[in-house]
Amino acid sequence: MELIIGPRTYSTWSLRGWLVMKRTGADFTVIDARYETEAQKAALREVSPSGFVPVLKVGGELIWDTLAIAEWANEHYPQARMWPADSITRALARSATAEMHSGFSALRNFCGTSSDRPMVGDARSETPSDPALDRDLSRLVTLFGQMRRRFGADGPWLFGEWSIADAFYTPVAARLRHFQIDLADYGDDGTAGAYAASLLAQPDFRLWEAEALA
Amino acid sequence: MELIIGPRTYSTWSLRGWLVMKRTGADFTVIDARYETEAQKAALREVSPSGFVPVLKVGGELIWDTLAIAEWANEHYPQARMWPADSITRALARSATAEMHSGFSALRNFCGTSSDRPMVGDARSETPSDPALDRDLSRLVTLFGQMRRRFGADGPWLFGEWSIADAFYTPVAARLRHFQIDLADYGDDGTAGAYAASLLAQPDFRLWEAEALA
Repeated sequence: MELIIGPRTYSTWSLRGWLVMKRTGADFTVIDARYETEAQKAALREVSPSGFVPVLKVGGELIWDTLAIAEWANEHYPQARMWPADSITRALARSATAEMHSGFSALRNFCGTSSDRPMVGDARSETPSDPALDRDLSRLVTLFGQMRRRFGADGPWLFGEWSIADAFYTPVAARLRHFQIDLADYGDDGTAGAYAASLLAQPDFRLWEAEALA
Repeated sequence: MELIIGPRTYSTWSLRGWLVMKRTGADFTVIDARYETEAQKAALREVSPSGFVPVLKVGGELIWDTLAIAEWANEHYPQARMWPADSITRALARSATAEMHSGFSALRNFCGTSSDRPMVGDARSETPSDPALDRDLSRLVTLFGQMRRRFGADGPWLFGEWSIADAFYTPVAARLRHFQIDLADYGDDGTAGAYAASLLAQPDFRLWEAEALA
């Protein structure tokens, strides 16, 4: 089993897929892909039907989207409890995960990661300012706050116990750190900020960061 | 159980959620939301945590993303066989569905739907032209062609038997029709175009269209 990923310093989707696969406990090989040049992009398209990363290669087949990789992992590694056990909590976790999958476009545009703006390490960039970004950050505060208040008794993660949703919001926490965004400026009472900090303190994220900086 | 949707003439995500819920065979009530005015947007935010549609309300809980609604429906209505039965085929179907969920942004930008550019009825708009749109359309031809050739023996849909992927690509077919896009111009040998036509011929889509035009 192989996970094809982009540069660890800034490929946010690669981080999500890798965190999910790490959580399964399964053995997998990481293949580093690059896509700066046209030749690299052409080579990537040979293994990535959409041209995106990450891609999971399993038994000669390609699973080419992070959320599809996550659902595949959930089906194949039930002991890793990738989604909440309760049906409604699971539907909420999938809603939050899918919202990240398709949304928060202002956050992704204004706080974009790159080799110059890495999501790892001590480099920091100035905080951008835009009304659309403000709306995304307010929405984050609401989402994190509501779910943490509701499920906090079950554990430290967004839906209590760790779930795929936490993998999906880890790069968000890394962006907030790099762009020096304080969620208190967007109405957070400390709940959302503490959750974001806990995402960056995960051993798996710290391992990724160490490997990215090595 | 209530499905909160936007305008049927142009809310592509509402159509996806509605097609999925119809397929379950379950009884559900459709609630029409509007979001043209600030007052309407504020009212929508009361029932939609993200401000988007569709939202499924079940037992007082809100499932606020189309893909999360689809996975919830898959879990609760196994007899409707929402995803392919084979594990790898299911992972491919989820990849294609998730690719639509987060991607094809040029198609969505250049072929945007609105009350003036409806995805239903006989109105047609001029075909837009842009290199990014060309890339999205070429990718559609590749995806539809590869999957139809591989799974065609199992049935007429993208992965043989009907799946959530078909619900997700139905609004795409409606955009192609409205913007008079011929996939043959993007390398299609007829396979992709025939599949898109079959999506528009689905009885559930035709029912949606009739209700939208009523």
